[in-house]
Amino acid sequence: MAALGNKKTQKISSLELPQRLAQARGDAELDLLITNVQLLDVITGEIYPTAIAVGGQYIVGVGLEYLDSPAKRMIDGEGAFVTPGFIDGHLHIESSMMSPFEFEKATLPLGTTTAICDPHEITNVLGAKGFSWFLRSAELMEQNLFVQMSSCVPALPGFETTGSDFTLDEMKSFKDHPSVLGLAEMMNFPGVIYADKNVLAKVEAFDDLNLDGHAPLLRGKQLNAYLLAGIQNCHETVTLDEGKEKLQKGMGLIIREGSVAKNLKTLAPLVNDFSSAQCLLCTDDRNPFEISHEGHINFLIKELINKHSVPVHVAYRLATYSAAKHFGLKRLGLVAPGKKADIVLLKNLEQVAIKDVLIGGKFVSELKLENHIQEKLTKSQPPLENTMKRKPLVSTDLQYDLKKGSYNVIEIVPNEIITKHLLVGFDGQNFSETDVLFMANIERYGKNLPAGLGLVKGLGLQSGAIASSVAHDSHNLMVIGTNAADMAFAANTLIECGGGFVVVDQGKIQALVKLPIAGLLSLDSAEEIKSGIEKLKVAFRAQGVVLDEPFIQMAFLALPVIPTLKLTDRGLVDVSKFQFISLFQEA
Amino acid sequence: MAALGNKKTQKISSLELPQRLAQARGDAELDLLITNVQLLDVITGEIYPTAIAVGGQYIVGVGLEYLDSPAKRMIDGEGAFVTPGFIDGHLHIESSMMSPFEFEKATLPLGTTTAICDPHEITNVLGAKGFSWFLRSAELMEQNLFVQMSSCVPALPGFETTGSDFTLDEMKSFKDHPSVLGLAEMMNFPGVIYADKNVLAKVEAFDDLNLDGHAPLLRGKQLNAYLLAGIQNCHETVTLDEGKEKLQKGMGLIIREGSVAKNLKTLAPLVNDFSSAQCLLCTDDRNPFEISHEGHINFLIKELINKHSVPVHVAYRLATYSAAKHFGLKRLGLVAPGKKADIVLLKNLEQVAIKDVLIGGKFVSELKLENHIQEKLTKSQPPLENTMKRKPLVSTDLQYDLKKGSYNVIEIVPNEIITKHLLVGFDGQNFSETDVLFMANIERYGKNLPAGLGLVKGLGLQSGAIASSVAHDSHNLMVIGTNAADMAFAANTLIECGGGFVVVDQGKIQALVKLPIAGLLSLDSAEEIKSGIEKLKVAFRAQGVVLDEPFIQMAFLALPVIPTLKLTDRGLVDVSKFQFISLFQEA
Repeated sequence: MAALGNKKTQKISSLELPQRLAQARGDAELDLLITNVQLLDVITGEIYPTAIAVGGQYIVGVGLEYLDSPAKRMIDGEGAFVTPGFIDGHLHIESSMMSPFEFEKATLPLGTTTAICDPHEITNVLGAKGFSWFLRSAELMEQNLFVQMSSCVPALPGFETTGSDFTLDEMKSFKDHPSVLGLAEMMNFPGVIYADKNVLAKVEAFDDLNLDGHAPLLRGKQLNAYLLAGIQNCHETVTLDEGKEKLQKGMGLIIREGSVAKNLKTLAPLVNDFSSAQCLLCTDDRNPFEISHEGHINFLIKELINKHSVPVHVAYRLATYSAAKHFGLKRLGLVAPGKKADIVLLKNLEQVAIKDVLIGGKFVSELKLENHIQEKLTKSQPPLENTMKRKPLVSTDLQYDLKKGSYNVIEIVPNEIITKHLLVGFDGQNFSETDVLFMANIERYGKNLPAGLGLVKGLGLQSGAIASSVAHDSHNLMVIGTNAADMAFAANTLIECGGGFVVVDQGKIQALVKLPIAGLLSLDSAEEIKSGIEKLKVAFRAQGVVLDEPFIQMAFLALPVIPTLKLTDRGLVDVSKFQFISLFQEA
Repeated sequence: MAALGNKKTQKISSLELPQRLAQARGDAELDLLITNVQLLDVITGEIYPTAIAVGGQYIVGVGLEYLDSPAKRMIDGEGAFVTPGFIDGHLHIESSMMSPFEFEKATLPLGTTTAICDPHEITNVLGAKGFSWFLRSAELMEQNLFVQMSSCVPALPGFETTGSDFTLDEMKSFKDHPSVLGLAEMMNFPGVIYADKNVLAKVEAFDDLNLDGHAPLLRGKQLNAYLLAGIQNCHETVTLDEGKEKLQKGMGLIIREGSVAKNLKTLAPLVNDFSSAQCLLCTDDRNPFEISHEGHINFLIKELINKHSVPVHVAYRLATYSAAKHFGLKRLGLVAPGKKADIVLLKNLEQVAIKDVLIGGKFVSELKLENHIQEKLTKSQPPLENTMKRKPLVSTDLQYDLKKGSYNVIEIVPNEIITKHLLVGFDGQNFSETDVLFMANIERYGKNLPAGLGLVKGLGLQSGAIASSVAHDSHNLMVIGTNAADMAFAANTLIECGGGFVVVDQGKIQALVKLPIAGLLSLDSAEEIKSGIEKLKVAFRAQGVVLDEPFIQMAFLALPVIPTLKLTDRGLVDVSKFQFISLFQEA
């Protein structure tokens, strides 16, 4: 197993330690010696020349005192800067549409040596069967993949239909796995604050590990109550004042820059030398297109330095030491003796120009990750059963019976996952606002329930429909369109192929990306997925869509734990009150 | 039990949490509301007005949003500043000569709400019987007393006679006690570095908790090897370069200011906004005289600010947040919702002018700690057996047979616990240096072994002798004198009374402080101990002693894990080589 042996101690085995000690002392040959490098020290903030001595997976020593030590392999760093490997503090790998192995291949060369993921997307679809696949995958990866225990499956009980639940007993059964660091984002903050027994039971069960939070816009007394339960961080902060209050109240501020939810610019002013110990970085949801074009955590560091005036040493600290410290990862986050040899070599710090990445003492470029994906995928036994358990739809299933009056409409906020709640008039012919489209959230787990129907503004679609089997977090089938026939056709296309993203127009498929694993993940390579997404982009732009990431934004229109108005398969949810409301607003 | 319920989770019990949540939300009456205070925020470094809402032992909320909340008790802070309670990162309570309950009474009003102690003094004398008394005491205290597992009893096996050993099995049997945070200072750094099996077995047994270090002057490859084993901090740093290297290599820098070992001035230049997250404070060994005259951790903060130009917010962070974070104390170190209500109210931050201290939501001044000491002492079942198991000495037991030539002499360094190694000539009549005195370290655990004999320079004693049953870490009987008769008389005085400190001259006791618990601790009050120490000071000064703390300095002359030359009951130890050397230096 490539990941650290034990999540709590991360210890070097007693069989291995004497040999590593001998290497550290200079009494045994090193496995690798990297000379001629400049260390960016994320403890003192200084940059100085050093050498790095590696034994097995570990850094056995750092310092010029190793310059004349014998080593099996000597590498001249050619003056490169070195930093610890980057840590993504919170993400859902499913949002990359890649298998964990493709994800590793795509992000490890970008310096992301550690990812703390919550596989709650696949767990909503497949329950423990989906969750345990991530644990098996983590054991086969070089990247340190930590798997937080999905805490809210479903996200909001009673408000959506999921493919499976994930019981406390199941959660407890996985607790001792070495890749489990704690409880994943506790999205049910009302449940915590109002002392829901089932919710507090989950918090209590994982209280000796980490307790990750999720509390968009939560402030004041409610925030205090949430923290009282022991919740230790939040990656959902969207305003400056909110971020400041969360820091003041002792919360770890995990600053996110996903494909849609982009908070770097807003929160960067809170980051300085002093506060940096409590600030971390995460991607949360980033698709292969952005990973390939912009990058991963490396991109966040670059943006912080170049666009948001965060000093170099502070930006790198957030992605390394601060994250390791926050999660209690004793052997990660520093280039220092006893730490795992997860190291980034860079030609330029400001530009995060990566020259080489080491994971556990091995050069990533030499691992040839691309050659082992199929083999690892097979070994990991992915759940390949069809999860699109829905009879084909007919147009009348998506029929709106519009009468004159006011309607509760979801307005998309570009590049945010929160929405606005609009009241839009209908005069019998037209809406009082432009760009109001039909949207359905269709249960896909074999119950064949009637679709949840809504109206949405802000997509810009002029004809046809788009559909997706990715719709947070229960991942029912989401469709937005200009007419019921295309909407039903789009939905049926995905039901037939096992899930994915589709753009249709006048009864024809314009672009399709298939996601056969749980309707969430592709079996293709990152490049193929990226190329598929590019085809989707061409297609939806041709049909008038004005958003950069309509599929990701649509996916979040289903998530009833993010304000303000959302649509689940059961209907419209007013998230400010956590209650269903009707589409038609009675006067 | 007043201390936190569980060292790992420090959780609020599931029975209590719903009530605390209701208080946080504002739906239930608060137990205490403190208004009109200015919080020094050790996360952001800012100072701002706020109110603190307390429920039970916990801070349920912080913020002006509680100003109109109903509370059983309202306190007007009168504009006071508030900071988290102070954390002493490493100390031996035995060095205060006080019982844990006296220590609590003396230091809690000074703001030390948490002490992380290593009872290795009493453990060297009494083994598990001594150690377990500290665990029982911790359970009876209001102050958070964490008890690290004494790792080196004896400090250096084979170099000294101890009253008892402390086996790995005994250590493991205490591991799950809620007051145990990890392994106490691993002083046997050569054992770690050179992979001694027994030493590594201890490290491994506690690897999932904290691993405290002790590595004076350790640098380069040797330091790297020590860190490789997982050791996480050091409080023994005495030079600036050494401190910088330890920070760079990822070690927590615990800056000490004891009664003798004073490192604040040397290490303060390493402390700044950025590095502060890795820097902590500790007292290690501080006697009641200094505690009463200067203070405890409050004194260290004041010195950092006023003498060493450390910014206010940084100085307080070291004593609070940084320490809690380092030791994984999730509910300590911040004035924030969900933390234990351990709070210091101050009239002035720069002067650390304390107005009030709260521990677990209670005002320390109202606890009347002084009224409960006897009762707690009885409940704690202290080990009261006589530990001075030595037949009285006669002068000839301390006879030196001096011949012409060179002698290995220990030179005391004032206010340091390291010593210098001098070579001093003897011409048959006089030494080539002034102020060379006789010193004996006499085994006191019933074996009646011959005394270890040495020579010491730097005390200034002109007549008589001083003796002590406190002599780190095996606590044999230490005597320094100008003649064998007074030395034997001093030793016999302590053998008769069960241990303590004594100053004698020409066969008469000049001053005596009795320490009947293990020859280390008094049953008297802090005030009585202080008054006894003042009498000792008058007496030893009258006899010419030039040191401020001769007893504390003498105690460290026995400690064979601190450089350079030390005297145990078995003889002179060259600590640079960890080997015995003879008093007479063959040419």
